[in-house]
Amino acid sequence: MSTKNPRLEQLEMRGSFIPRHIGPDRQQITEMLAALGLSELDELVEKIIPANILNHEPLKLTETISERAVIKYLRNMRERNKVLVSMIGMGYYDTIMPAVIKRNVLENPGWYTAYTPYQAEVSQGRLEALLNFQQMIVDLTGMELANASLLDEATAAAEAMTLSRRVAKSTSNTVLIDRDCHPQTIAVVQTRAGSLGYRVMVVDPYAGLEQYDFFALILQYPGCSGEIRDLANTVAAAHRKQALVTVAADLLSLVLLQPPAGFGADIAVGSAQRFGVPMGYGGPHAAFFATREEFKRSMPGRIIGVSKDSHGQIALRMALQTREQHIRRDKATSNICTSQVLLAVIAGFYAVYHGADGLRMIAGRVHRYAQILAAGIAQYGHQVVSRCYFDTLLVRTPNRAKRIAARAEEAGINLRVIDADHLGISLDETTTRNDIRAVWQVFSAPGYEMPDINTLDKVVAECIPDMLLRGDAILQNPVFSRYHSETEMMRYMRKLARRDIALDRAMIPLGSCTMKLNAATEMQAISFYEFAAMHPFAPLHQAQGYQQLFAELEDMLCDLTGFDAFSLQPNAGSQGEYTGLLVIRKYHQVNGQGQRDVCLIPASAHGTNPASAVLAGLKVVVVACDTNGNVSVDDLRAKVSQYRDRLAALMITYPSTHGVYEQAFREICDIVHQHGGQVYLDGANFNALVGLSRPGRIGADVAHLNLHKTFCIPHGGGGPGVGPIGVRAHLAPFLPDHPVVEGVNPAKSEHGTVGTVSAAPWGSASILTISWAYIAMMGAAGLKRATLAAILNANYIARTLAPYYPILYTDANGWSAHECIIDCHEFKKTANITVEDIAKRLVDYGFHAPTVAFPVPDTLMIEPTESENKTEIDRFCVAMMQIRREIREIEEGFADKENNVLHNAPHTHRLLLEEWTLPYSKQKAFFPDNEQHDDKYWPPVGRIDNVYGDRHVMCSCPLDWGGTEVNDGI
Amino acid sequence: MSTKNPRLEQLEMRGSFIPRHIGPDRQQITEMLAALGLSELDELVEKIIPANILNHEPLKLTETISERAVIKYLRNMRERNKVLVSMIGMGYYDTIMPAVIKRNVLENPGWYTAYTPYQAEVSQGRLEALLNFQQMIVDLTGMELANASLLDEATAAAEAMTLSRRVAKSTSNTVLIDRDCHPQTIAVVQTRAGSLGYRVMVVDPYAGLEQYDFFALILQYPGCSGEIRDLANTVAAAHRKQALVTVAADLLSLVLLQPPAGFGADIAVGSAQRFGVPMGYGGPHAAFFATREEFKRSMPGRIIGVSKDSHGQIALRMALQTREQHIRRDKATSNICTSQVLLAVIAGFYAVYHGADGLRMIAGRVHRYAQILAAGIAQYGHQVVSRCYFDTLLVRTPNRAKRIAARAEEAGINLRVIDADHLGISLDETTTRNDIRAVWQVFSAPGYEMPDINTLDKVVAECIPDMLLRGDAILQNPVFSRYHSETEMMRYMRKLARRDIALDRAMIPLGSCTMKLNAATEMQAISFYEFAAMHPFAPLHQAQGYQQLFAELEDMLCDLTGFDAFSLQPNAGSQGEYTGLLVIRKYHQVNGQGQRDVCLIPASAHGTNPASAVLAGLKVVVVACDTNGNVSVDDLRAKVSQYRDRLAALMITYPSTHGVYEQAFREICDIVHQHGGQVYLDGANFNALVGLSRPGRIGADVAHLNLHKTFCIPHGGGGPGVGPIGVRAHLAPFLPDHPVVEGVNPAKSEHGTVGTVSAAPWGSASILTISWAYIAMMGAAGLKRATLAAILNANYIARTLAPYYPILYTDANGWSAHECIIDCHEFKKTANITVEDIAKRLVDYGFHAPTVAFPVPDTLMIEPTESENKTEIDRFCVAMMQIRREIREIEEGFADKENNVLHNAPHTHRLLLEEWTLPYSKQKAFFPDNEQHDDKYWPPVGRIDNVYGDRHVMCSCPLDWGGTEVNDGI
Repeated sequence: MSTKNPRLEQLEMRGSFIPRHIGPDRQQITEMLAALGLSELDELVEKIIPANILNHEPLKLTETISERAVIKYLRNMRERNKVLVSMIGMGYYDTIMPAVIKRNVLENPGWYTAYTPYQAEVSQGRLEALLNFQQMIVDLTGMELANASLLDEATAAAEAMTLSRRVAKSTSNTVLIDRDCHPQTIAVVQTRAGSLGYRVMVVDPYAGLEQYDFFALILQYPGCSGEIRDLANTVAAAHRKQALVTVAADLLSLVLLQPPAGFGADIAVGSAQRFGVPMGYGGPHAAFFATREEFKRSMPGRIIGVSKDSHGQIALRMALQTREQHIRRDKATSNICTSQVLLAVIAGFYAVYHGADGLRMIAGRVHRYAQILAAGIAQYGHQVVSRCYFDTLLVRTPNRAKRIAARAEEAGINLRVIDADHLGISLDETTTRNDIRAVWQVFSAPGYEMPDINTLDKVVAECIPDMLLRGDAILQNPVFSRYHSETEMMRYMRKLARRDIALDRAMIPLGSCTMKLNAATEMQAISFYEFAAMHPFAPLHQAQGYQQLFAELEDMLCDLTGFDAFSLQPNAGSQGEYTGLLVIRKYHQVNGQGQRDVCLIPASAHGTNPASAVLAGLKVVVVACDTNGNVSVDDLRAKVSQYRDRLAALMITYPSTHGVYEQAFREICDIVHQHGGQVYLDGANFNALVGLSRPGRIGADVAHLNLHKTFCIPHGGGGPGVGPIGVRAHLAPFLPDHPVVEGVNPAKSEHGTVGTVSAAPWGSASILTISWAYIAMMGAAGLKRATLAAILNANYIARTLAPYYPILYTDANGWSAHECIIDCHEFKKTANITVEDIAKRLVDYGFHAPTVAFPVPDTLMIEPTESENKTEIDRFCVAMMQIRREIREIEEGFADKENNVLHNAPHTHRLLLEEWTLPYSKQKAFFPDNEQHDDKYWPPVGRIDNVYGDRHVMCSCPLDWGGTEVNDGI
Repeated sequence: MSTKNPRLEQLEMRGSFIPRHIGPDRQQITEMLAALGLSELDELVEKIIPANILNHEPLKLTETISERAVIKYLRNMRERNKVLVSMIGMGYYDTIMPAVIKRNVLENPGWYTAYTPYQAEVSQGRLEALLNFQQMIVDLTGMELANASLLDEATAAAEAMTLSRRVAKSTSNTVLIDRDCHPQTIAVVQTRAGSLGYRVMVVDPYAGLEQYDFFALILQYPGCSGEIRDLANTVAAAHRKQALVTVAADLLSLVLLQPPAGFGADIAVGSAQRFGVPMGYGGPHAAFFATREEFKRSMPGRIIGVSKDSHGQIALRMALQTREQHIRRDKATSNICTSQVLLAVIAGFYAVYHGADGLRMIAGRVHRYAQILAAGIAQYGHQVVSRCYFDTLLVRTPNRAKRIAARAEEAGINLRVIDADHLGISLDETTTRNDIRAVWQVFSAPGYEMPDINTLDKVVAECIPDMLLRGDAILQNPVFSRYHSETEMMRYMRKLARRDIALDRAMIPLGSCTMKLNAATEMQAISFYEFAAMHPFAPLHQAQGYQQLFAELEDMLCDLTGFDAFSLQPNAGSQGEYTGLLVIRKYHQVNGQGQRDVCLIPASAHGTNPASAVLAGLKVVVVACDTNGNVSVDDLRAKVSQYRDRLAALMITYPSTHGVYEQAFREICDIVHQHGGQVYLDGANFNALVGLSRPGRIGADVAHLNLHKTFCIPHGGGGPGVGPIGVRAHLAPFLPDHPVVEGVNPAKSEHGTVGTVSAAPWGSASILTISWAYIAMMGAAGLKRATLAAILNANYIARTLAPYYPILYTDANGWSAHECIIDCHEFKKTANITVEDIAKRLVDYGFHAPTVAFPVPDTLMIEPTESENKTEIDRFCVAMMQIRREIREIEEGFADKENNVLHNAPHTHRLLLEEWTLPYSKQKAFFPDNEQHDDKYWPPVGRIDNVYGDRHVMCSCPLDWGGTEVNDGI
C-alpha cells in the first residue's frame, strides 16, 4: 500500500480477526512455504490431502464478523436470556464467585490456557490448587481420599456404580438408586448401567432393603426433595448385602451436616458448583469423587499426589498416572480423560477464601433462611412436607402447584414444579430478605399478614437434630485460613500462576492436544451475567438466548462437518465417543440387528476409544496397522469378514493419531458399510479437516468434536472439555434427551433415544459461546486458512528437525498432517537418554514439552497449531536442535552418560546457590540459547520423583501448607 | 461460633467486604494492638488523634452493601446511560480497545496496581511500554522528543503555553489561540493564562498574524471543524514574531497527514484517547506532549529514558527526574505529578498491536467513509462546508441544525450542533456502512434516493492534496511489527508485567502514596460498555447513569468531609490544588480583596503545593516548622501579621507530610481565618481522617482528595489520578464549569466561576465508579475501621522497627499517624550506606521500597495501608531488620565498605552465571531471609546508572527493540 494513498481495499472490518488468530503473517507463511518448496498455501492441499476426501461444496459460513461485532451480537443474545431468581435446586444453585477469583483465575489466561499437568515441574501452581480442592473434599465428605474432579455429579454417580461393581463382594447385577436422587443422576446411571448390562432399580431405600440383592446403593443427601435422613441404618443394611454405598451429597450442606463417611458410606460424590462456580445453564462445573484409601487404585479420574523433587523438596504431581494417556484400553473401567480442572480450582479457591468460618456463615445463613421461609409458608396455611432439611423445602399445594409457580415467575422467581400438588423451593448463598418476602407474597392469600423475618428468626427452632449436625472441625489446614483478605488471596492465586507454563508464556507444542489461541474476545461472554447465572432447568422461554446459541452453533457444526444433527450434551471427548457408540448400538437394535456388538479399532487408536467401546457394551476387536502406521486394509477386510454378522462399528481417528492423512479413508468406510457396520470418526484431529473436508459426506456416520481443541475452548489446566457429536440423519432420532427438560432431541422418535449421558441437558452450555464466537469471527475462509496454517507449521517443524531427529509416520511423500512425531528411541541406546529427559530439558529452554510417548513409545509428538508464528516455532526448533547436539555430546563421549544437562534437567535456581560441581557451565544449564535473559522461566522444583510418589501415595495437603508464617525476630 | 450451632448473628451479607479490604483479621489486630500496649482499636483514637478534630455527628453513610449488591446496583446505573453512536468529535472518538489489551492490561492487576516507576529496577516492564508510547508519539508527530503522557489535551496545550513562555524569545505577554481549537482547550488555556497573567486572544490565525505580538500560537490540526490546513506559512509567520507554535493534533489523522514537525511546529500536543482507550464520558485518557530536543529540560511531566545497568545492559528509567517528587517548589513552572501511565501504556500497545499497516488501514477507512458520507450528503442538496478533512465534516443546514440533530438522535446517533445553521459530523474506527446510511437517512428528504456506498467508493476523489499527506514511514522500530497476532501480543504484555513488582506480588509500602487494595469488584464497572463508551458531550438526558453516579459520589464525599459541595473536574491531585487555590482567589476578588495574593505554605509541604500556588498566581511564603516537624505556630503568627492584607490562603497537609496529627490544626485554621485568609487543606493524607474527622467542619475551606490514594482508584503505574475538591458553601459558586456542557457547577452565580481546569466536564468520569463502589461497600463504619487499621499498621511497624532505626517526627507521645519515617542519615557516615542502597537491597527481599528521601532527605517513609495484613508486614519488618544487621556488619568492619550486599543490590541472576567473587554468600545475596524459594522475584536488571542516563539522554526505542529474532541454526 502506498503511504501516499490511503484508499482502502475494503471498508469493512470483517475478517480482521483471522490474522490475529493465525500466528504467522503473510511474509512468514511465504518463508515457511519456501522452506517446503511451495509457494501457495493451497499447494498443501494438493500435496498432502487425499483428493477424494476434499469438500467441493460451498459452505454456508461465508460471513465473518469482527471482534467488536461478535461482542455486540452476544450482548443482544444475552438479552434474550431472562435470568430470574432460581429456587429450582436439583443440584444447581446460584452462588457468588468472588470477584478476586473471577478476575485472577476465570479471566486470567495464566490459569485458563494451561494444559493438563502431565509435566508436573511446570505445573506446580495448578497442582497446588487442585490439592487444595482434594483436601476440601476430603474434609467435607469425611472420606479418606478425593480425586481432582469429574465431569458432573451424575457421571460421578455412574463412576461410583462401576467402582462399586469392581470392588463389591456382592455378585449381584443390580444397582439400587434412591428415588429421591436428582432425576438427571438417575437417568445417567440408567444409561451407563444399561450399556454395561446392569439392572437399575429406583427404590425408597429407607423403607428397607431386605428384599433386594444388589452390589451398589446410591443415595442423595440431602434428598432432591430437600429431606435430610439419617443414613446410618440404610448404609449398614447395604453393607450386610455386601454392596457398596455411594452418597451423592450437597457440598454446602456438608459444612453443617454429618459427612457421608460418618454414616459409613463407601463413596461420596457430588457437585462443587455452588462453591463459586456459576450455573451457566448447566456447566461446566467440577464434580467430586471421594472414597476409601483402599479403593484408590480403582478410582476414576486424576488424583494429585505429593512427592519430592531432585532436591528432596515437596513437589506435586498426578499420582497413579496409568489411567491417563495410557488409559487401559479395552481393560478400562472408565473412559474419563478430561476432568474439570479450572472449575475445581475455582471451587477450591472459594473454600480457601472463605475458610471454615466463612463457609459456616454462608451455609448457616442459607439454612436459617430456609427455616424462616418454611415457618412463613406454614403461617399461610400451606403444608411444608419437609421435616428435616438444609436449604430445600417440599411444599404441598393440592392442584395449585403450577398456578403458584406461574405467580412466582411473574414475581421474578423460578420454583420447582414437582407435580400438580407439590412444589420444591431451594435457597442458596444469594438469597436475600427480599427473596423470602417475594416467595411469601406468592403463597399469600387475602387477609393474611406478611410474617416478619426478624420475629421468625428469633422463634423458629432448628429443624435438624443434633446428631445429624457435624461436630468436627473442617478445613483446618493452614491454607484455608491464610488468604481471607482480598490482597492476600490475589497474591496467592497469582503466585501459583507464576509457577506454571501456560500459553501466556510460551508455545505448548502438544501433539493431539491442539493448544491454539483462546482469544480474549471468545472468552468474554462466559463472564456475562445472563449467560452465567441461568439455571439449566429454567423454563425454555426464559432461555431464548441460549436456545439461539445452540441452534446457531449446531448449524455451524453441521455446515463444517456435513452431518445432519448434533448433540451438545456430551461434556468431554470421551463422553462423545461413548454417546456416539450408544447411538450406533441403538440404531442396530431398532433395526433388529441387536446382535451387532463388535467394535473394530485400529491399533493406533487413542486408548479412550476401546475404553468407550467397552463402556458402551461393545466387544473390541483390534485392526492392525501397517509398517507406515496406517490402518491395514487387508486386516480390516479380514476382520469384517470374520465378524460380518456382529460388526457394529469401526472407530477411526482421522487424520490418524500418527498425524497422517491416510489415503484409504473412503475405502475403509465403504468396507465397513458394506458389512453392515457404522463408521465412528474420532474427531480429535478434526482441526486438520476444518474447511477442507466434511466427515459426514465422506463416510462417517457419527463423530465427536473436541470443542476444547479444535474450536478454542481453553484447556483450563485439564478441563473443561466439550465433546458434542454429529450424526447423519438416520441416527438423529437416537441422540440423547433429558429427563427434566423437554425438546433436547427434537428428532426423538417412538423408539426412544440412548438416554441421558450428562447431568445437564446441553452439557457445558456456557462455554459454547467460545466456539460460537471463534467460528463467527473466522468464517469458512478463515477456518480453512487456519487449518492450512496448522499443517504448514507442522510440516515446517518436521522439515526443520528432520536432519536432527527421525520423523516417524509421514505419508508416502513425506508429509505430515497437523502434527509430527519425532523418534527418540535410539537415544536410549546411544546416549542413555529418554524422551522424558528431553521433555524436562525443554523446561530449561522455557518450553512446555510436546506430547511424550504417545501415540508411540519413545517419541515426541509435536503440534504447533496455527496460532504460533514462525518466530516462536523457530525458537522451539533451535531448542530441539541444541538438545540434539547435547545428546550427541553424550553419544560422542564429550559429556557424561549420567551426569549431563539432560538427566539433570530441569535446572532450578537452587543449584546456583550451591557450589557448582556439574561438568558443564551454568550458562549451558540455565541459558543454553543465550535468550530469555529478560524472561527466564525458573522451574520451582527439580525433576520429580515419580517412584517415590507412587510408593508413598499422599493426596492431601501437607501440614504446613500455603506458605510459612514469619516469626523470625519479632 | 459453635460448630454445632449454625444459627447466625445476621441474615445479611452486608459488611462482608470490610474484612476483605482490611488486611489484618481480628486475631492479627489483637496481636498488633497488644504489641502497642492497647486492647481496642478505638484506643488509637484516644491516644493519637487530637480530640478537637474528631467528628461526633453521625454520618449518613450507615448502610454497607455487599460486593454482589454493588455490581447489581451499578448494572442498574449503567442502564440509565443510553449509549448512542457518537459523531460529536471535538477530541473524543469511539475506538476499539483490542480485547487482548483489555483483558491483559486494563483488567490485569499486574498492570493497574503498579506504582510510578521511581524504582526503575522493578519497573522495566511498564517503562518499556511507556518508551513504546513515546516512540509512537515521536513517529506520528515527527518531533524529536515526547514525554510519557500528560493529563488531557487541554492541559497539555496549557503546558505548551507555559513552555513557550519559558523558551520563546518574544517578550510579549500574549498567547494566540486558533478559534478552530476545541472549545475545552481554549477554555483551559484561558484559565491557566489568566492566573499567570497572560493575555489570550482567540483568532483566525490563517487570516494573517502580522497585526499581533505574541509568544505562543496554538493551532488545532485538523481543526475542530474538521478542516485540514497547510500550516507552513502560519508557523513561519509566528516564528518571525519570535513565538513558539504548538499544534494540537489528532493522533489518528497523523497516520495519513504531514506531521506537525513537517510544518515547523515547535510543540505537538493532543490526546491518545482514540488509540484504544474508551471515551469513558471524558476520561481518563493519555495526552501527549512532544517537542524539540533543545527544550527537553523544560518539558513538563515525566520522560522515560534509556540508560544502562550495573552489567552494562540496556535499562530504562525516568530521565530528568528532578521535576518529580523533588518538584521545584516555588520555582516550578508546572505542578504536574500524576501522568496517565495506564492509558499511555494502552495507547502504546494499541500501536504495537496494529503496527503501521494496521493504523493506516484504520485511518484510511475512517477517512474514506468521511468522503463517502460527504458525497452522499451533498447529493441530498446539503452544503458540506469542509473542503479538506480527515474524519470530520462541517455541514451547513440553515436553521435546521437542531432539527436534524434531533432526528439523528432518534436514529441512535449524536451529531454536533455547532449553531443554528451548522452541524459537525465526526467518524471513527467503529463507523460502519450502517452508520453512514443512517446519517444519510437523517439528511434525506422525500424523493431522494439513498446513495450507494460502493458506487461512491469508486468515484469519490481524495480531498486531501498530496502535499498534505505524509510520505515518510512510521513505526519502523521492530517493536511495532512483531506482535500482530494475539498470541504474540498476549505474551509480550504479560512478559512485561512479569518484570515488575506490583501489588499483585508484594506490599508496596510507599509513604504518602497509599498503595491499598484495588478490589476486583471496584474495578468492574469501568469495563461496562455503558460507562466506557459514552462521549463527554453527549446530551445529559442520555447520561443519567453518570449523573446519578456524580450526585451520589458527591453526597458521599460531602458526608465524609463535611464540605458543602464538590467539583469532580480536577483529574489529578495537583489539578485539585490548583483549582482550589483559584477558587480562593476568585472568592477574594469577588469580595473586593483582589490584593490578597500570599499563600503560606509550611516548610514540610509536598513540592506540588508551592508549584500549584505559583501557577494560581499566588506568592509563596514559607512557614517554618519546629524541631518536631510541626508547623511553627509562632512563625505562622509572625507571617500572618506580616502579610495581613495580602494573606490569601494557608495550604496545609493534614495529617502532615511527616505522618503526624499535629495538635494545633484548629488553632492554625483560626489564626488564618482571623486574618482574612482561607484554609486550603491538602487532602493527600485524608485516608488518615476518613470516618474520624471532617475537614470542612474543623477549619478547612477547601480541600482536594486523592481518589487514587484514599478511595481505591489504582495507581496504574503512575496515573490516572482523580483530585476532586470539596469546598464550604461560600466557595461553591466558584467551582469550575465547562464551555460545552451546561450545569457542571449548579451553584454558579453572576460572578462567574474559576473557569475550566480539565478538558472534560467531570474529569476522569469513568473511574469514579471505583471510589463510589468502595465507599458503598465500606460504609461509615467500615471506612473508620480501615482508617484505624492503617494507623495501627503504621504504628506497629514504627514500634517494631524502632529498636533498629530511629523513627522521625512522631507526636509528643511517640505515635505516628498512618505512616512513619525512619531516619537513615547516620548510615552515610557509619557505613557509607544511602537510603537508595536500602531501597535497592529491599528488591533482593522481594519488596518495592518505601518512599525514598521524601519528605525528608536520607529517610524512608513507610505506609503499609490497612490492606496489608500482619503476615506481610512482619515479612517486611524482618527484611528491614536484616538490612539493619547488614549495615551493622559494615559499621563493625565485618563487611566491606564498598563491596557489600547493599551497594551491589539488587542482585540479578546474571551474577550467578559468573564465577562468584563477591565477599558474601550467594544465599545471602539472593535469599537473605530464606523465604521466597517458591516465588523469588528476579530483577531483570541490576542497579541502573542514573548519571550515565542523564548524560546521554535517549528517550526513544533502541534500534533492536522488542526481542530478537531467532536465526541461529535455521
